[in-house]
Amino acid sequence: MMKLFIGIDVGATNVKLGCFDGELNLISKTSITTNAEMGPDIVIDNTAAAAKTLVTEAGFSMDEVCAVGLGMPGPAKYSEGIVISSTNMPKFKNVPIVRMLGERLGKKVVMDNDANVACWGEYVAGAGKEVEDMVFFTLGTGIGGAIVNHGELLTGCGDNATELGHIIIYPDGRRCNCGQRGCVEAYASANWTAQRATEAVEAGAESSLKEVLQEKGEITCRDVYEHLAKGDELAKKITEETAKALALVCINVLHTTEPNRIVFAGGMIAAGDALLGRITHYFNEHIWTLKKESVEICFATLGEDAGIIGAAALAKHARQ
Amino acid sequence: MMKLFIGIDVGATNVKLGCFDGELNLISKTSITTNAEMGPDIVIDNTAAAAKTLVTEAGFSMDEVCAVGLGMPGPAKYSEGIVISSTNMPKFKNVPIVRMLGERLGKKVVMDNDANVACWGEYVAGAGKEVEDMVFFTLGTGIGGAIVNHGELLTGCGDNATELGHIIIYPDGRRCNCGQRGCVEAYASANWTAQRATEAVEAGAESSLKEVLQEKGEITCRDVYEHLAKGDELAKKITEETAKALALVCINVLHTTEPNRIVFAGGMIAAGDALLGRITHYFNEHIWTLKKESVEICFATLGEDAGIIGAAALAKHARQ
Repeated sequence: MMKLFIGIDVGATNVKLGCFDGELNLISKTSITTNAEMGPDIVIDNTAAAAKTLVTEAGFSMDEVCAVGLGMPGPAKYSEGIVISSTNMPKFKNVPIVRMLGERLGKKVVMDNDANVACWGEYVAGAGKEVEDMVFFTLGTGIGGAIVNHGELLTGCGDNATELGHIIIYPDGRRCNCGQRGCVEAYASANWTAQRATEAVEAGAESSLKEVLQEKGEITCRDVYEHLAKGDELAKKITEETAKALALVCINVLHTTEPNRIVFAGGMIAAGDALLGRITHYFNEHIWTLKKESVEICFATLGEDAGIIGAAALAKHARQ
Repeated sequence: MMKLFIGIDVGATNVKLGCFDGELNLISKTSITTNAEMGPDIVIDNTAAAAKTLVTEAGFSMDEVCAVGLGMPGPAKYSEGIVISSTNMPKFKNVPIVRMLGERLGKKVVMDNDANVACWGEYVAGAGKEVEDMVFFTLGTGIGGAIVNHGELLTGCGDNATELGHIIIYPDGRRCNCGQRGCVEAYASANWTAQRATEAVEAGAESSLKEVLQEKGEITCRDVYEHLAKGDELAKKITEETAKALALVCINVLHTTEPNRIVFAGGMIAAGDALLGRITHYFNEHIWTLKKESVEICFATLGEDAGIIGAAALAKHARQ
């Protein structure tokens, strides 16, 4: 009899599921549409059904599943297994999802937030594999964060530690969606990088991105990096600002939990060395000389699978 | 037979020593001049002799001492018990102080940095008593920091975690002694608070501190708070800047390790509510609304004894 672990990564659009062996090798994976507007009961029914199908189609029985890990966007009371509310899934209010999914599957379910789960995936199987102390950022709509300290995900007094996107780097700077001013998210997330480019073009900056805005009605982060590759000066300026903001937050977390690796994930890392090289440049320019070589900054390696791997790994970790 | 713990707090000027019972009640304490210029052998001899005298004069025997805790300024390899170098004690270079003191006392010695030790004292017996997650700042020449996470001092991959004074709050701002620009230390330590006032007076600002500078040749942080109490506008402006800088770093550590209490210590807290009230004000003004009530900001309560209490408590903790 196999020992299997299931990892589930719930997003507003898709629910990703993976079935892993006891060594956390991926056996098979699938994805279903979340259909969040149909409410938590149906979403959880569909997720449980997809998990069962995933296991049986791979030739195994649910009896062989030891535990299930679940990554969910917050805010949630992760320690109690309850989703409090979700910006992109408005029907999910005070949903005891861990109990509900556990009952449908007849398995123990462990839940953590999406950034923690993806971080844990990279930590056990990706860019953080050889280290004990890692800081993780996801660069997407916003900026998510997670910290591994001595081989454990760092948590605080509640369920809201490592909101690293809301570290303030420019006091009295840009207004973030959270209401604070000057959060790193308000400069360096994919959405805000695009937004800064849009504002600059609208304010009359010379740029090949002007035509993009005229033709599509919007500038995306991908556009910024594409035009950067073509030598556009505005795209370069916007990227420098993004990189400097990320370098500053690297310095601040380094002085706090002293990781030996800092890992960036999310769609924006497709920009490659045009982004990573600049982050490293600004980090070295601004860091205390003594600490210049003390941390490695790199990109995540697992791509979209980080969530299901991390969720399965958390389920395994919780059983140990 | 009693179970005793000795706490030793080494500073550049004085070595403080305390003898504690198994419940960490202070039995007796003493202080000797460090005489750092005489070199590590003599300093360690004198410290060991003072510890023995402290115990015997209190009517106990060294046999009753279970372990010894030691707080030392860095940089040091704390985990290896070695002082690498010390700005204010230049003869202390690569000194295996834990082994040397342990041999002289015939006891197990545990060492940590001075900020960690003082934090641990406040955590077990002072301002952090009822919480599990605390962040601690000492406001002195520089700004030291320490974090208790789930009841343990937070450490990182090396010996240099929680250098919270070097969190950058104003990128490209004032040059800190560490070489970085815009560290919170370069705004809000006692020395830099005094320095900012001095610069302002020298630049021609109207202030009753002008006479202080003319008479004494310098302005101290104490002067700033005395003139604040008398209604001086410059002292008020300087204090607002100090408080805002400290509020910003509180926000950033809150988003990182999510403490339920943030404790400030050091001579500067003598300023009382004139400082604490302003820190709280700026914290509430700049923090994400959702987190406004999530942390209590307060001052340390143990004064100069925090180091010896913390060192003794660490020695006890290490034995458990």
